Amino acid sequence: MMEEITGEKDSWEVLGGLIAHGHLSDIQFFMEGIPSKERARAISRLNEEEHIRLLEILGPTIAADILDDLPDAQAADLLEEVKPAAAAAIIEELDSDDRADILGDMDEEATELILEKMAPEEAEEAREMMEFADDSAGGIMIKEYLAYPAHVTLLDIQNDLRENAEKYKNYLVQYIYIIDENESFIGLIRLRDMVLNSGQRKAADIAIKDPICVATDTPIEELQSFFDEFPYLGVPVIDAENKLTGVVIRADVEEAAEEKAQDSFLKSAGIVGGEELRSMPLTKRAFRRLGWLSPNLVLNLISASIIAIYQDTLEAAIALAVFLPIISDMSGCSGNQAVAVSIRELSMGFIEPKEIKRVLFKEVFVGLINGFILGLLLSTVAAIYGGNLYLGLIVGLALFLNTVIAVCLGGLLPLVLKRLKKDPALASGPILTTVTDMCGFFIVLSLASQILSKLA
Amino acid sequence: MMEEITGEKDSWEVLGGLIAHGHLSDIQFFMEGIPSKERARAISRLNEEEHIRLLEILGPTIAADILDDLPDAQAADLLEEVKPAAAAAIIEELDSDDRADILGDMDEEATELILEKMAPEEAEEAREMMEFADDSAGGIMIKEYLAYPAHVTLLDIQNDLRENAEKYKNYLVQYIYIIDENESFIGLIRLRDMVLNSGQRKAADIAIKDPICVATDTPIEELQSFFDEFPYLGVPVIDAENKLTGVVIRADVEEAAEEKAQDSFLKSAGIVGGEELRSMPLTKRAFRRLGWLSPNLVLNLISASIIAIYQDTLEAAIALAVFLPIISDMSGCSGNQAVAVSIRELSMGFIEPKEIKRVLFKEVFVGLINGFILGLLLSTVAAIYGGNLYLGLIVGLALFLNTVIAVCLGGLLPLVLKRLKKDPALASGPILTTVTDMCGFFIVLSLASQILSKLA
Repeated sequence: MMEEITGEKDSWEVLGGLIAHGHLSDIQFFMEGIPSKERARAISRLNEEEHIRLLEILGPTIAADILDDLPDAQAADLLEEVKPAAAAAIIEELDSDDRADILGDMDEEATELILEKMAPEEAEEAREMMEFADDSAGGIMIKEYLAYPAHVTLLDIQNDLRENAEKYKNYLVQYIYIIDENESFIGLIRLRDMVLNSGQRKAADIAIKDPICVATDTPIEELQSFFDEFPYLGVPVIDAENKLTGVVIRADVEEAAEEKAQDSFLKSAGIVGGEELRSMPLTKRAFRRLGWLSPNLVLNLISASIIAIYQDTLEAAIALAVFLPIISDMSGCSGNQAVAVSIRELSMGFIEPKEIKRVLFKEVFVGLINGFILGLLLSTVAAIYGGNLYLGLIVGLALFLNTVIAVCLGGLLPLVLKRLKKDPALASGPILTTVTDMCGFFIVLSLASQILSKLA
Repeated sequence: MMEEITGEKDSWEVLGGLIAHGHLSDIQFFMEGIPSKERARAISRLNEEEHIRLLEILGPTIAADILDDLPDAQAADLLEEVKPAAAAAIIEELDSDDRADILGDMDEEATELILEKMAPEEAEEAREMMEFADDSAGGIMIKEYLAYPAHVTLLDIQNDLRENAEKYKNYLVQYIYIIDENESFIGLIRLRDMVLNSGQRKAADIAIKDPICVATDTPIEELQSFFDEFPYLGVPVIDAENKLTGVVIRADVEEAAEEKAQDSFLKSAGIVGGEELRSMPLTKRAFRRLGWLSPNLVLNLISASIIAIYQDTLEAAIALAVFLPIISDMSGCSGNQAVAVSIRELSMGFIEPKEIKRVLFKEVFVGLINGFILGLLLSTVAAIYGGNLYLGLIVGLALFLNTVIAVCLGGLLPLVLKRLKKDPALASGPILTTVTDMCGFFIVLSLASQILSKLA
């Protein structure tokens, strides 16, 4: 049923036309008729003028609904295009956790201008939420939960739920939190317990006392571990004074973990400044990518300097030039496999950053086996190509040794970077490539320089 | 509070000791006291003998509880170690969706042996579940939901919930599904509606009729889009005959999406056969990695053949040898950035595989800008290093042209592979590297051969 309109061609052309006509109801009807991904895609194809006009026609409330379904990076880009006052009005209509996420994805300047235009207490709350790391309980908790004082009866709660049904529409209603007069957290009632108990009973009597809760700085990995363990839909978040400050929902934890995985994937491929969407301005995209490529160029020059040093050796045994890039690339591939396994095991909690010995022990044998097989293969090819056994020997030995080095280094780098509080996904690749390139070039060329007469 | 025991050293040594003593209650007490990640880690450090003994002591029910919290790949490895009959007894204690996931991660032979030992109807159901793709509604739906015939009253349902509270402990109770005498799906009642309506009313009268449901083959991306759109906790899955066959939970969709993202990350780094854990046997790990490295070696030989063809040119202008690996590596980096953005945009539904022109248009300018800047930088370095303007010109021009090629190719490859129903994360990297290496080597060396007298 969701495919009905997806199949239709060029939904952004339809949307563009509707914006030109400017009828709110038409746009709303069209937007509601397409799935959220199609909507995000259609919006990404409009130009800046159309974006401004669209948000203007929709008005803050509906615009916030639409923004809520877009990827954070896209929503942030959209809001950067409109006037700060208009952006502030839309931001105020968003849920508390989404506000911080979107503001956090914008340029700092733009964020400040918008916060200035927001109601002071709302701006204050947003600033507080932005303090929390994206991958912590504070960063993903919601403020839309039900909390009642200890003395109310279940009937009181039922009446409140009935009277404010519209307001509570998007609330987490599966748990009802009970607090005392100081707003300290006492316990919770599950919605199912409401069904099974008499309305006359007091909330405090039914409530499960001292349920498990988490702190605002609890990291995503620990929250995942928590929800793996317990079948709950959400967990209350308390601050240092035992005050209930929010609730973390199971699905939001999984979503944050997915975002983190996507982030690692993008970073390891050199998309550094977070998400890149092709709807972003060209110069922003080009310069962000360049910010990663430029230090890589410097690293490449460093590793190539080894070749420069041995230039005469290479000239005398030019057949080696064919195999230099192969040794460099293959070692990089072997090392990257070990990097990926270490990053994965770290994120699963299977290894701790201090377990250098274990990783080294587990990787060195993989390196020896794979280095030997690959080295033997390349050695054969080189010996036949050059018609020279020594050439084969040097090339094969170099690939063997360099594979062992690359696999061990690749396995260890993410652990070391984690201990240095650097992002393993970001830095492992370039460091690995530089070191293994240097080692590879050095092993081949220094060996060759020893027996140059036999190679020429 | 979850850290209490995490901080303790070497929890697997404690576990190993407890297994040696063999007291179920001690092991259970210890296991329940540590978070699930720590438990997974401790189990991964035990040897095969200890694994067998552990599952034996725990017995099928508790063993299934423990396995449920482990990563699927680890649970599968564990069950491969014990006798098929013991594995079957444990599998039968798992939830229906977990059974299929774990069996699907095992060797085919092992799976067959276990299925033979299971109760015929359970084995049949598991086989059916295994038919569904991991990333489809059928692959992640649960069978633990509440369904009642249309004629019952709310009071009947409340009584059943009360009487079977223990059985329904891990059920999705937020929705109560109503079916007719042919098991056809009629509608659903939300738990909150149970709270707000009189117990005398009939289920059929309260039920929301014809709610949105999905088919067993609905892909993860569409389910994500669905849950982005609607604030529901779960969505019913119906088969071709409108029979209710399962329920997909919001959190499970996010979890499956995370697994898919992790999978892309691992695959793009050459960890092909799904997850690799360092607790797996050495030869399995080495040969799986080799399965990816070997074809890469062949591709590397193909691209290096360009150098072999121009060996004489290179010998005459040996300074070029320093820059060949730089051009090859830098183009690879630029191309990989475009690959990552395309894979990300495809998974978000921001581009469709057919939008070749849009991607080309968006990438070619990034390639021109970054190629120009990087080319200029490298050109300067080469000219100074070689003391030869022509050397700088050739190297810079080659990097410029090859960056444009790499960025365009990198952007397009995932789209083309997706259209060919190949996995973009798996194949984009090697194809990109091979083509850009060949182009890079060819551009440098063929240009050099034209003006060799000026380079020497």
